[in-house]
Amino acid sequence: MDIKLLQLALAISLFVSSSSCVELVTSLSGCWVNELHSTMQIGVSDSGLITGSYVSNVSGSTQPAKGNVTGYQQSLSNPTFGFVVKWITAPGSVSVWTGQYFVINEKETLMTMWLLRRSVSTSEDNWGATWTGMDVFHRNDKACKHDDGGTVSPDAGSGTGPKEFESLVRIP
Amino acid sequence: MDIKLLQLALAISLFVSSSSCVELVTSLSGCWVNELHSTMQIGVSDSGLITGSYVSNVSGSTQPAKGNVTGYQQSLSNPTFGFVVKWITAPGSVSVWTGQYFVINEKETLMTMWLLRRSVSTSEDNWGATWTGMDVFHRNDKACKHDDGGTVSPDAGSGTGPKEFESLVRIP
Amino acid sequence: MDIKLLQLALAISLFVSSSSCVELVTSLSGCWVNELHSTMQIGVSDSGLITGSYVSNVSGSTQPAKGNVTGYQQSLSNPTFGFVVKWITAPGSVSVWTGQYFVINEKETLMTMWLLRRSVSTSEDNWGATWTGMDVFHRNDKACKHDDGGTVSPDAGSGTGPKEFESLVRIP
Amino acid sequence: MDIKLLQLALAISLFVSSSSCVELVTSLSGCWVNELHSTMQIGVSDSGLITGSYVSNVSGSTQPAKGNVTGYQQSLSNPTFGFVVKWITAPGSVSVWTGQYFVINEKETLMTMWLLRRSVSTSEDNWGATWTGMDVFHRNDKACKHDDGGTVSPDAGSGTGPKEFESLVRIP
Repeated sequence: MDIKLLQLALAISLFVSSSSCVELVTSLSGCWVNELHSTMQIGVSDSGLITGSYVSNVSGSTQPAKGNVTGYQQSLSNPTFGFVVKWITAPGSVSVWTGQYFVINEKETLMTMWLLRRSVSTSEDNWGATWTGMDVFHRNDKACKHDDGGTVSPDAGSGTGPKEFESLVRIP
Repeated sequence: MDIKLLQLALAISLFVSSSSCVELVTSLSGCWVNELHSTMQIGVSDSGLITGSYVSNVSGSTQPAKGNVTGYQQSLSNPTFGFVVKWITAPGSVSVWTGQYFVINEKETLMTMWLLRRSVSTSEDNWGATWTGMDVFHRNDKACKHDDGGTVSPDAGSGTGPKEFESLVRIP
Repeated sequence: MDIKLLQLALAISLFVSSSSCVELVTSLSGCWVNELHSTMQIGVSDSGLITGSYVSNVSGSTQPAKGNVTGYQQSLSNPTFGFVVKWITAPGSVSVWTGQYFVINEKETLMTMWLLRRSVSTSEDNWGATWTGMDVFHRNDKACKHDDGGTVSPDAGSGTGPKEFESLVRIP
Repeated sequence: MDIKLLQLALAISLFVSSSSCVELVTSLSGCWVNELHSTMQIGVSDSGLITGSYVSNVSGSTQPAKGNVTGYQQSLSNPTFGFVVKWITAPGSVSVWTGQYFVINEKETLMTMWLLRRSVSTSEDNWGATWTGMDVFHRNDKACKHDDGGTVSPDAGSGTGPKEFESLVRIP
């Protein structure tokens, strides 16, 4: 109870503080597609808070992988940023990306490096639980068919399970 | 305007959706200290949304480095998680961590890998803008003297600039 | 034939050039053990060329994982270095480490970051083929029971195959 | 003395063992160029031992960065591999790459991830000493103007020093 009120207070204070900030020089708000045809739909508050959803084409499953996005961008003309995806369709796994926005050949581009973490049973197995790689995203406002840029409903993942991720279906 | 209302709607919907979730098996809420004596104070909603602040002892500056935290944890007994720090005292830089919670020798422990991204002027310099490493955090509720576990005020960073980070003062 | 002669010429020239170099300030020659109880027995030439063998306790197999080591160290009092292990018992996989030598609490220590690469069938699966992590080694001349610090015979791996590695038995 | 004889014995045994191996399915021998116009000239023995030299266009210096290469490849039709570069022109630094060979759009391609390690004074500064990134190489036998595919003479680096690397001139 108390903690729920705290959450609400935090949520509102985030909104209020964002409202009082100067606007971002360059906002990452919108739809982004990477080289694996994954799509990310995000909104960004004036304070740089990123919120949205991520959809990835899963090679080993009949359903796409989906996740919720939270993160931050800095306020620069070429902003750096970081974001987290909590996978719904692979509920043991989490991914993080960090990178920078550039306009390359007139295309708005996000150059990123990522880490993907799977769940392991004990700390002895911790050593082999983290993958790494690079993703390049381009802005493409037509590519996202997410419901409404908001958070993904937990129902979205029904029917797919963590096992599929364990066998490394395409998520990033 | 519209976007501010959207932010508020999102914030409230996050709160509402979190309220309707089952409680987390293990919550990362609290204060965490890593091997470099950096401290992180976070709260976690029932849906796994992480919010908080990060303070790091900067070796090359008279002031500690500070940043705001957002992220997600999964709902497992040994939850995986990811979080982002938007540095206030190094406004070009962003860090991301991902890892998993374990109880090791009766100590609550976060085993993490991280990426630190600095801002570069052009995409030609992108190749050398990302550091990587590992951090181990332990729970220590007495270590955090952050104001109130909420977001860090932008004022916290006044007087320190990106230059200090460029010379790689201790931030992670 | 020609290429074999070239190899021999190269091998001899490496020997000759190493002979004419100043001796290393600090040599990494000897036996090293990491936090997962893996052992590495290496020799280092005066020019900094590292040669040796690596043995790792495999959790999912009755036999340890073995591999040959090649690499380089710089000539510093706290030398940086890099080395590669070509796994014999997991013939699709290769690991690389890079790091620096420090004396910490009077213990000779190698602080390293590593990448582990597995083989995938096509470039579409390239994204998920690289793991990352950290290893800390300490010098322990009694820990290595490798044959003689030289290269591991291909026979060493008979009986174990790439499949075991695919399921992420403990190699680093 | 003894150790020099050991080095020679090792060098010869490497040659002999390589001679007795089956030939590689696909050899990486030749000249490779990456997206930053760095060039690598390597030879590969039948046992998969990689030897060669690396030349990189340094943005902050009048001279290119040079280094010696050692590594291993596996014997597969799409071989995985790892290699180390000991920088001559940045004598505190070492880089490692690992990846896999693919034919993509009829082009022979090396998809790699890398770590770059600089030297730091004490273990306290170890956390910020490792960069990470991705490189894509294509075979281009005309691009390499290295002396002869062998090791780079230490003289090659005269006139450039570690300072240039510290400021992150383009090496990978």
